[in-house]
Amino acid sequence: MRWTIDELARRIGAAAEPGSAAVVNGVATLVDAGPDQLAFVARSGYAQELSSTRAGCVIVPRDLAASVPSVALVSDRPHAAFARAAALLHPDPPTGGTRAPSASIADDACVAEDADIGANAVISQGADVGAGVLVEPGAVIGPDVVIGPDSRIGANVVIGRRSRIGARVRIQPGAVIGGEGFGYVWDDDEWLRIPQLGRVVIGDDVQIGAGTTIDCGALDDTVIGDGVLLDNLIQVAHNVRIGDKTAIAGCAGMAGSAVIGRRCTIGGGAGIVGHIEITDDVHIAAMSLVSHSITEPGAYASGTPMDRHADWRRNAARFRQLDRLARRLQQVERDVGGAAPGRKGKKESP
Amino acid sequence: MRWTIDELARRIGAAAEPGSAAVVNGVATLVDAGPDQLAFVARSGYAQELSSTRAGCVIVPRDLAASVPSVALVSDRPHAAFARAAALLHPDPPTGGTRAPSASIADDACVAEDADIGANAVISQGADVGAGVLVEPGAVIGPDVVIGPDSRIGANVVIGRRSRIGARVRIQPGAVIGGEGFGYVWDDDEWLRIPQLGRVVIGDDVQIGAGTTIDCGALDDTVIGDGVLLDNLIQVAHNVRIGDKTAIAGCAGMAGSAVIGRRCTIGGGAGIVGHIEITDDVHIAAMSLVSHSITEPGAYASGTPMDRHADWRRNAARFRQLDRLARRLQQVERDVGGAAPGRKGKKESP
Amino acid sequence: MRWTIDELARRIGAAAEPGSAAVVNGVATLVDAGPDQLAFVARSGYAQELSSTRAGCVIVPRDLAASVPSVALVSDRPHAAFARAAALLHPDPPTGGTRAPSASIADDACVAEDADIGANAVISQGADVGAGVLVEPGAVIGPDVVIGPDSRIGANVVIGRRSRIGARVRIQPGAVIGGEGFGYVWDDDEWLRIPQLGRVVIGDDVQIGAGTTIDCGALDDTVIGDGVLLDNLIQVAHNVRIGDKTAIAGCAGMAGSAVIGRRCTIGGGAGIVGHIEITDDVHIAAMSLVSHSITEPGAYASGTPMDRHADWRRNAARFRQLDRLARRLQQVERDVGGAAPGRKGKKESP
Repeated sequence: MRWTIDELARRIGAAAEPGSAAVVNGVATLVDAGPDQLAFVARSGYAQELSSTRAGCVIVPRDLAASVPSVALVSDRPHAAFARAAALLHPDPPTGGTRAPSASIADDACVAEDADIGANAVISQGADVGAGVLVEPGAVIGPDVVIGPDSRIGANVVIGRRSRIGARVRIQPGAVIGGEGFGYVWDDDEWLRIPQLGRVVIGDDVQIGAGTTIDCGALDDTVIGDGVLLDNLIQVAHNVRIGDKTAIAGCAGMAGSAVIGRRCTIGGGAGIVGHIEITDDVHIAAMSLVSHSITEPGAYASGTPMDRHADWRRNAARFRQLDRLARRLQQVERDVGGAAPGRKGKKESP
Repeated sequence: MRWTIDELARRIGAAAEPGSAAVVNGVATLVDAGPDQLAFVARSGYAQELSSTRAGCVIVPRDLAASVPSVALVSDRPHAAFARAAALLHPDPPTGGTRAPSASIADDACVAEDADIGANAVISQGADVGAGVLVEPGAVIGPDVVIGPDSRIGANVVIGRRSRIGARVRIQPGAVIGGEGFGYVWDDDEWLRIPQLGRVVIGDDVQIGAGTTIDCGALDDTVIGDGVLLDNLIQVAHNVRIGDKTAIAGCAGMAGSAVIGRRCTIGGGAGIVGHIEITDDVHIAAMSLVSHSITEPGAYASGTPMDRHADWRRNAARFRQLDRLARRLQQVERDVGGAAPGRKGKKESP
Repeated sequence: MRWTIDELARRIGAAAEPGSAAVVNGVATLVDAGPDQLAFVARSGYAQELSSTRAGCVIVPRDLAASVPSVALVSDRPHAAFARAAALLHPDPPTGGTRAPSASIADDACVAEDADIGANAVISQGADVGAGVLVEPGAVIGPDVVIGPDSRIGANVVIGRRSRIGARVRIQPGAVIGGEGFGYVWDDDEWLRIPQLGRVVIGDDVQIGAGTTIDCGALDDTVIGDGVLLDNLIQVAHNVRIGDKTAIAGCAGMAGSAVIGRRCTIGGGAGIVGHIEITDDVHIAAMSLVSHSITEPGAYASGTPMDRHADWRRNAARFRQLDRLARRLQQVERDVGGAAPGRKGKKESP
């Protein structure tokens, strides 16, 4: 897409200094951008690159405006302004109603006229594919699945029966929505399987990463709220509920029936055990294990800091003695007549 | 499926109180179930939902029988009874010998007459697909693969050459069985690849989750025992052996040649290093790292408990001083004439 | 493939003792190998198996040469010699220009004459598939993708638009190259998406495991160096750069813009946070979290050692008191007139 710099500035809420009717048609890095491209700098520290950039315009915070050799697009939130500009300059190509000859579309499936169905994609009976939807090659849309308008289903994605996908949802290649969850009961020396009868229900404006798996519910549904972001290779077990606008980084896992609030962030590789509840606005550090419910907003973590292996090994060995060390410390405190914190009065009294 | 309550009670080993010839045809939650559905409660704590349920019958433990407004199906293992009832009411639909026109079936593949082969599925040369098997759309069955009766192969699953899959195995979408393992030797400043020549051999009644990967063996086979349950996104490296009825939760990983016993449970995100052995009846906590063999049954764990980030940070910083702290404690003990545990006699002697 | 033992010895740099013109045609374990097969032993400890092996020849270190009942192939690096022998005896079958009738190949795609394209594979417009390339069934090669000679693309792999794959790259089934990364900015109570415009660029001789995901770059490219080995279910976020010959074990994850040096090894399940740099020749232990840059070669780790759950629990509870324990120790040291390390002079002076 092509925009004049002035119009672009207006649309992203930035001030063009100086104003310019020149046209830009894409974004690039400071180093690579040419005169018809836009670049951005979020903070100082790139003086060299900025002074020598050939970009037609550069989104910058106020204090860098004077350093832009071409047109500065001044914003107090340059990263967000850049996201808006990039979306305007690089919109998704519109769909046009393509049906690949090799696609398998069930007779009673309902596919919007302008939806694109890629090569070898499968649209099963009773499925309903909305307007402007893109189904990439090899994706398998199961029976009675509903996909809202303008969603994009990546190559070789699988969406299991009866799942409901909202509008403007982006599912990256290889993700699996609606597989059967891990519903087994140990009884009498064998595992009994419990049929998994619930659905997956995904809100609007959700991103689902490559290879991520979301199991269908056991009886109730597994529910992903509006605006939720799931990175790659995330495991969402049956009956998990994730609140609106929560973002979860790659390789995280949520066990069955975990409930996660709104606007949370979960770091990469973190684990959430089953049947617990995390309130809104909670932030979990990477690779932490959340082993019980969290009722207060804030930041949480577990684990130990990285160290040189030789040092780590010495310290890690002591971890196995920690309780004993604590008891020995207590003994020494008694021996010297001192007192543990909280019993300080005792120490000072004699 | 439809069953009278009395017949269902008989089959799941529960007592119907009072007996009833009414018919139920499905399971649902206490809240959602109607008069032709069965619900269940495993323990007290749902008095409100139980008293107002419209379910035709409810599986309950003895002490809740009087609280069921309709028919109580009394069981001393209500969860297992529910699994049995759900399986009776919601059996897998039988296969019927469907061959999707877009499926690619090799001339010399052997596919049982009543097996279903979905759209765009690929059955390679020499493959043997047993009676009652369902191969969902887009699944790729490699050369000389054998699939036992009544197994279900999910959409876009890949099963590599010569793998053997037992009877009644359920493989969820996107799983990869029989990829080439990580067989490399570092030599002379380069990695040398070792051809991976073994198979994957999977027993009967195994569940394999979505996106889970099981590598073929290097020379010997990778072996998954009968009744093993593998959740989603699990990595099973070459030559791993997993004993019967072991259950492994999502995102866990087992490195090459690890051997895991029978009836173990491995928590989500746990890691098992290579070339170690875990005996039967071992239980590993979520996100633990098993770094050496385990020879005694029991529960094991590693890691640190979750905490508020600010508190965690202070404590984690001390972890890097642990060995030093332990030595300082020892020094103090010496200074006060005290003794470390195990040398207590010394302390008391003077 | 068939080789005389003498010729094979010559090619792998081993000494045949005694020389032999007998032929071998494959490798197997000491226990399974027959007279026309080669086995190997890397170190002592298999005396029983070695003495009774029926293998036609056995690769061994010098000190075991006398124990081989047939022909010893003596090498000072037996594991590497075995890798070389196995590669000679079990080369990949050559491609022959097969085009499955069900493959979808765009009119303007360029596919080398001798490349094999499997059933239901999709080669999109503008793609360039090199000589000797194998594309297995169901793989989706996106628009303008370039695949170098002799690479092997596994079943149901997805390679996104404009990705560049080098020569002799092996991509295992289900991997996703070039999905859209996790590019979002939080602004004004909503997540703004940043279009992902970069490519994935993969060098020569790279291995990519089953289910592994590599996101395309945001503006610049995501870059995987020559000879890099990635195991299964690894997450590589946008703009990550991995240096030549680095090997990464299963379930590891690298967040956005992390830079990893050459010849590193990253253990299974390890996590690398975003925007940090790891220098060459760094070795990260399994399940460690790398939370800041590493500027010196060497081995690093985080985490705590596995323990019996009951012991672990007691010690883990103390972890949350660590800072307090350290302060109490300091107090005791003061109380007894002792001194913390580094202030030892003080102690000795009075």
